[in-house]
Amino acid sequence: MDRIPMNKLPKASPIRPTDAEARALARSLIDGARAGMLATLQSDGHPFASLTSLALDTDRTPLILVSQLSAHTGNLLRDPRASLLIASGGKGDPLAHPRITLQVRAEPVPRDTPQHVIARAGFLAHQPKAALYIDFADFLLVRLAIRHASLNGGFGKAYELTQEDLVPEDLAPDAPVG
Amino acid sequence: MDRIPMNKLPKASPIRPTDAEARALARSLIDGARAGMLATLQSDGHPFASLTSLALDTDRTPLILVSQLSAHTGNLLRDPRASLLIASGGKGDPLAHPRITLQVRAEPVPRDTPQHVIARAGFLAHQPKAALYIDFADFLLVRLAIRHASLNGGFGKAYELTQEDLVPEDLAPDAPVG
Repeated sequence: MDRIPMNKLPKASPIRPTDAEARALARSLIDGARAGMLATLQSDGHPFASLTSLALDTDRTPLILVSQLSAHTGNLLRDPRASLLIASGGKGDPLAHPRITLQVRAEPVPRDTPQHVIARAGFLAHQPKAALYIDFADFLLVRLAIRHASLNGGFGKAYELTQEDLVPEDLAPDAPVG
Repeated sequence: MDRIPMNKLPKASPIRPTDAEARALARSLIDGARAGMLATLQSDGHPFASLTSLALDTDRTPLILVSQLSAHTGNLLRDPRASLLIASGGKGDPLAHPRITLQVRAEPVPRDTPQHVIARAGFLAHQPKAALYIDFADFLLVRLAIRHASLNGGFGKAYELTQEDLVPEDLAPDAPVG
């Protein structure tokens, strides 16, 4: 990156139009993630950042497994508004690497339901070590239903995406068959 | 980890008493970090998770460099309450690795002050590639003054720490001299 003179700084919105490349990058970040960073709200309205392990439900909604002994679970059960950061990581400047912020609504998956059986199997397929504790009484599977996403592909590569942008063609309702 | 029968789950608080080992782990996580996940508040009160590069100011307060074109900067300038997650990362179960959540208050460092000169030099020493953009007019150095910390050293190793727990002995006001 060359140094840009101060008088040539961009003044307008830095958001680029969403294209196929941005959608593909967003999906690959979400598909490959094994951990995410969750932002939730404390009872006093203060934000709270924490680590979660991550998998995808069959409709590609992010799925987390959380203990009711932990602060973020109490936060999510009190106020379902949350934000999930998925970052690819890498060497050098941390800001040079792609990451995506998902604005989500937390939806606990009720136990003893077909939905739970499917979500549990999907979670364990992606996170096999969670078999040690997934059935503990205090653990909950929670879907993080995506409302909106902000993708940053590296310096100057910012995009705003909808939930629809994150559904791959083969799962989209209007995808051609065959 | 052995599987614990459901009827032997801990019911009480999972927080352990803070000891020297916990303090040392917390400090090493903060000292070594080059990136963190920031939780801020949108204008509608929704939490927002984003990536930041990270350094430490001379008093060991976390220091971030953010663009006023980015959403988290607007959030911090509107409401200084924030939370910073620092995770060591590693292979296997993401939850088996240490991480710390810092509950912080954002304090922008005013330009053209001795404080800014020192903070800028400290930031660049830890993040040399930021020299490309640290002097852009839209970039701000922001101190994240620690109010409280939650350390998770891995499964079942949770601690609550104060700001004082995070100051190493050689910087503590009452440390013996010599």
